[in-house]
Amino acid sequence: MSLDDHARVQRLRAAPRTDRPLGERMHRFCEALQTRLCRALERLDGAARFTHDPWARPGGGGGTLSVMEDGAVFARAVVEVWALDGRLPAPAAEVLGVAPQPCFASGLSLVAHAVNPYVPSILAHLRYLRLGEDPFAPADRWFGGRAVLVPVYPSREDAEAFHRAWKAVCDRHPGVADYRRFKGQCDDATYLPHRRQTLGVGGLAFDGLRDDPEGVFFFVREVGRALPSAYVPLVERRRATPYGAREVAFQQLRRGRHAEFCLAVDRDTRLARAVAGERTLRGLPPAAAWPGAEGEPGTPEAEAARLLQPHDWLGVEG
Amino acid sequence: MSLDDHARVQRLRAAPRTDRPLGERMHRFCEALQTRLCRALERLDGAARFTHDPWARPGGGGGTLSVMEDGAVFARAVVEVWALDGRLPAPAAEVLGVAPQPCFASGLSLVAHAVNPYVPSILAHLRYLRLGEDPFAPADRWFGGRAVLVPVYPSREDAEAFHRAWKAVCDRHPGVADYRRFKGQCDDATYLPHRRQTLGVGGLAFDGLRDDPEGVFFFVREVGRALPSAYVPLVERRRATPYGAREVAFQQLRRGRHAEFCLAVDRDTRLARAVAGERTLRGLPPAAAWPGAEGEPGTPEAEAARLLQPHDWLGVEG
Repeated sequence: MSLDDHARVQRLRAAPRTDRPLGERMHRFCEALQTRLCRALERLDGAARFTHDPWARPGGGGGTLSVMEDGAVFARAVVEVWALDGRLPAPAAEVLGVAPQPCFASGLSLVAHAVNPYVPSILAHLRYLRLGEDPFAPADRWFGGRAVLVPVYPSREDAEAFHRAWKAVCDRHPGVADYRRFKGQCDDATYLPHRRQTLGVGGLAFDGLRDDPEGVFFFVREVGRALPSAYVPLVERRRATPYGAREVAFQQLRRGRHAEFCLAVDRDTRLARAVAGERTLRGLPPAAAWPGAEGEPGTPEAEAARLLQPHDWLGVEG
Repeated sequence: MSLDDHARVQRLRAAPRTDRPLGERMHRFCEALQTRLCRALERLDGAARFTHDPWARPGGGGGTLSVMEDGAVFARAVVEVWALDGRLPAPAAEVLGVAPQPCFASGLSLVAHAVNPYVPSILAHLRYLRLGEDPFAPADRWFGGRAVLVPVYPSREDAEAFHRAWKAVCDRHPGVADYRRFKGQCDDATYLPHRRQTLGVGGLAFDGLRDDPEGVFFFVREVGRALPSAYVPLVERRRATPYGAREVAFQQLRRGRHAEFCLAVDRDTRLARAVAGERTLRGLPPAAAWPGAEGEPGTPEAEAARLLQPHDWLGVEG
């Protein structure tokens, strides 16, 4: 290899593969991540398997909805990859506050509802949106995403471990990611105003990341790849914790909150529903309850509700 | 009694009592109707009783939330009267598309979820809104309301009886009420776009009724008073129908649709949530499910889904 050749190879290795549009690269990444996440969750469950349902969107785009149900560890887990390649539908444009226009969007979403009420659920997604016809000269483009831990009975230990994982990812991407900001955005985005309560114990949320698209895409990929290591140990820690009817009843109440979040609060779900319709609701809990009475003061259920407030888990918010 | 006195008494009898603000009269009517509805539902249930929880709104107003749970006929019934007397909260103003401003609003809402999957649920409310300080010279004021039948397994017979009741009320108020228009508005307002399905078999929905306030208030009162006669016979007809686990499972699915409607679709619930917060969600079903699979073609469950489309029950839409 000549010195010239060597330099060329070095340059190619260092350079991002900008010869393909960012949206296409994001979509391929999401597809690979979907496979990886499904495998990790199947391995963890040990009993159930995902079924994969590919779909095409009449207006352009489509995706694959992967669902695992009635497992040993997971009552339901859904991993979806989707793309929208065409015109931004009016309801989606309304959520975004832009005019309907040519658009490319791609993303992955993950939700896992555990059988054992001591095993927390996770809710995560990653997405890329481009407005305008030309992928190389878009009118606008940005990345967004989040990862949220949604326990039935919040544990400080689990919350801290989950947040430590995301702080570590953010700290590896200075200038692109900011753990404190993204953590605060997650608390805001997952707050149920009518309950004066957060959905879970938070995590990360980011949106509108426009500058340094290659740097952001790298960060987004790292978030996706870190999902198993941030979540799987928490499942393993709690999967054998004994529980009874009382915990199951409280799990149903907390799943009601989850449904409220998806249906009434979450802007991201509204956006997804505008693109993928009914399919988006496959991630709802298998069942939920709105019981007549809530936990008495002094019970673990009342303590759980108390912990569902924005909290500086890592002691870094000064 | 002199002839003059007699004429004065006749005039007073004929004249509406416009010496009290319309909002105050509406609120008193709703309170009286609440008592009447609670009694009718308790009589029908025969086992459970309502508990009545009065509340005051910090910004002005308040109400009474009446809840009956775990009855023989009703799993949950909620009758709420509420008033807002003060400044229209920003989220409510946003739903209404007006600026936050002084306001008086009062209304009643009713929801009943039956135990037996063959007994339909009902969802109804009535409301009055006034914008501006002066009750006798408001910036704007209008009435709205609705009554919707929400069966698990829709029956043509029940749907027709329910619609006949409302057509009769509308026909007694020409110039104010129009069954065909209000019926169509109900189909529109209760359509779940992501499911391409209506919530139930419809009924009436009206809003923004501004002209002839006394005539409209009379119509609104008649709608309220007709609720027991429109609904109770349907409960009596179905309450003893035998059912099993299969019907209960489908009831849970249909309650999931009900939750979707309240949380994701319904503008009225969003408005109520902006005024009364968490309390508004007491009317959610006690439990709901989002199962992995829906009814196979040819089953009663698939037939039920087929009937959940706007339908000309009375053959009057030509």
